[in-house]
Amino acid sequence: MERIRSIEWVGDKVKIIDQTKLPTKVEFIETDDYKVVAEAIKSLKVRGAPAIGIAAGFGIYLGVKSYDGKDKERLKLILEEVCFEFASTRPTAVNLFWAIERMKKVFYQNFHLEVDQIKGILLDEALRIQNDDIQMCKAIGLNGSKLIPEKANILTHCNTGWLATGDYGTALGVIYTAFEQGKKIKVYVDETRPLLQGARLTTWELMQRGIETVLITDNMAAFLMKRGEVDCVIVGADRVALNGDTANKIGTYNLAIVANYHGVPFYVAAPTSSIDFNINTGDEIPIEFRSGDEITEIMGKRIAPEGVKTFSPAFDVTPGNLITAIITEIDIFHPPFKESLVKIKEMLKKED
Amino acid sequence: MERIRSIEWVGDKVKIIDQTKLPTKVEFIETDDYKVVAEAIKSLKVRGAPAIGIAAGFGIYLGVKSYDGKDKERLKLILEEVCFEFASTRPTAVNLFWAIERMKKVFYQNFHLEVDQIKGILLDEALRIQNDDIQMCKAIGLNGSKLIPEKANILTHCNTGWLATGDYGTALGVIYTAFEQGKKIKVYVDETRPLLQGARLTTWELMQRGIETVLITDNMAAFLMKRGEVDCVIVGADRVALNGDTANKIGTYNLAIVANYHGVPFYVAAPTSSIDFNINTGDEIPIEFRSGDEITEIMGKRIAPEGVKTFSPAFDVTPGNLITAIITEIDIFHPPFKESLVKIKEMLKKED
Repeated sequence: MERIRSIEWVGDKVKIIDQTKLPTKVEFIETDDYKVVAEAIKSLKVRGAPAIGIAAGFGIYLGVKSYDGKDKERLKLILEEVCFEFASTRPTAVNLFWAIERMKKVFYQNFHLEVDQIKGILLDEALRIQNDDIQMCKAIGLNGSKLIPEKANILTHCNTGWLATGDYGTALGVIYTAFEQGKKIKVYVDETRPLLQGARLTTWELMQRGIETVLITDNMAAFLMKRGEVDCVIVGADRVALNGDTANKIGTYNLAIVANYHGVPFYVAAPTSSIDFNINTGDEIPIEFRSGDEITEIMGKRIAPEGVKTFSPAFDVTPGNLITAIITEIDIFHPPFKESLVKIKEMLKKED
Repeated sequence: MERIRSIEWVGDKVKIIDQTKLPTKVEFIETDDYKVVAEAIKSLKVRGAPAIGIAAGFGIYLGVKSYDGKDKERLKLILEEVCFEFASTRPTAVNLFWAIERMKKVFYQNFHLEVDQIKGILLDEALRIQNDDIQMCKAIGLNGSKLIPEKANILTHCNTGWLATGDYGTALGVIYTAFEQGKKIKVYVDETRPLLQGARLTTWELMQRGIETVLITDNMAAFLMKRGEVDCVIVGADRVALNGDTANKIGTYNLAIVANYHGVPFYVAAPTSSIDFNINTGDEIPIEFRSGDEITEIMGKRIAPEGVKTFSPAFDVTPGNLITAIITEIDIFHPPFKESLVKIKEMLKKED
């Protein structure tokens, strides 16, 4: 089976899988036009924080490459214009701005070189953004797979795999690594209402890699666990506080309580960049509320009465005391997180 | 606001709300043709165990009424044929068979009378089936409302209201009664995947009666409770074991664990006929598994890849130790249920 990635550099074009068409259609966008890449980010054809950053890297290169003159002042204007355009695609995506800054930084560091040399360096940097992400996911996977038994039924929530990243993914990266190590893995996937990332994306990407996949609705997890069919839960993280409190896709907190009740280990897999050393507890994490349409309509189909009120948080916060371990690219961290997570700060400082 | 019921006897016709069209369209079937009533049950236009029984009662009367001769042997054949037809509409619906038996019983008890007299008695019995159910729901509501504070935010799951019964309902009956008593009630409704009875039906019927209604996805309950926004949970029951273990719509067990974790009271409201005195624990309750399409398709829209496996239980069992009280038409019962529920058996015996 050919190994697809969410974003690939093929010759002189970027090839992006259109995630809005999944799982019913598998379509790719292959383009050397940076505007097409920006539109793909804006319209959620590319999604997942790392994948957005990677797409922006290639997009910025394509934008600068399209200039065929030799005037470096003109080149600078083009870079700034292209970066501005990408910055406006998903204004709340942290990885997007991080990638833009990384591309700008190498551009200005190498501004003394010729136009063609600068272009080459920008392509190298874009490729490096993707490769760095893949290496980080692999490291999370290798660390996390130590926690996975030879035969394991794993429950996951939302989408945290190769579609959302350079390859492998975070929580799913652990699963792919255990699977590649020859472990016998079955994955139960929460459909993940309201936006159904589990049903639409996670099932599809796991099946693409040949892993046994079983879809459930979010409210079936407890019943599965009671039957002894879940050996552990692995989820990703949007933001982790110093005490281990973890903000992640809505439904994660529910799942953690239910896992705790059944004595099922509950793992969070995330890069250390998700740990916010400035916040002590999850109470400091602001929760985004989404439009009620995400609940009252499913893929364009109205499921509730007109005028009904809704309550629609995009995320919830799982308290650290419900988390068995936090898996990062550096190491696995155990409770009490207040003590263990501080060590990451020290480890990262040493690496700098 | 006119008070709609799921089924009403109007003059010489039965008027049934078409639940398959809700919540986007409010359409009624008004008919004196028993075949139309049978088709309405078969095609789920009427749903909810008590409502199905009531519809069958009126349907059997209409079938017998359609005979305009005086030959009682012919009348008997018609009754048997009509009952056979209703029995085949939803062969697993217990209330359906109970209603058919009730109609047959009065028919044969009064077989010595004239055809027209028998017809009149059958109509009276059909009206009584509905009225008995309404009185039982009212009694559940009055008992349960004692547990509801003057101002209460209540979370419920699935549909257990006037659409599913003669009027009021069981779990929603408690809510309607508290509301009619002037209490300030806000109801959070679980959408109730996979079939979305909460989103489609419960929100709509609560809004029809002027109650403040907020729709959530099933996985948001824990987050709501953590914010202190839920004063109690009330759900219905399909079957209750002697130790209080309760089979109900999938997702109920999840919700009970989450309520327990947050110290939120968890109430079950059901008629004593739901208590199965022959089973000691929930382990003896067989769980029905449904077609995977109910998960992979939502109102005709495909949401998951072709070929994905599913796990789709229709019900789960909530252990009695997670239930704060069981509300019936007789009284409220508290743990230990092993002791309290046995008393119901004695109370029912005395009534006989």
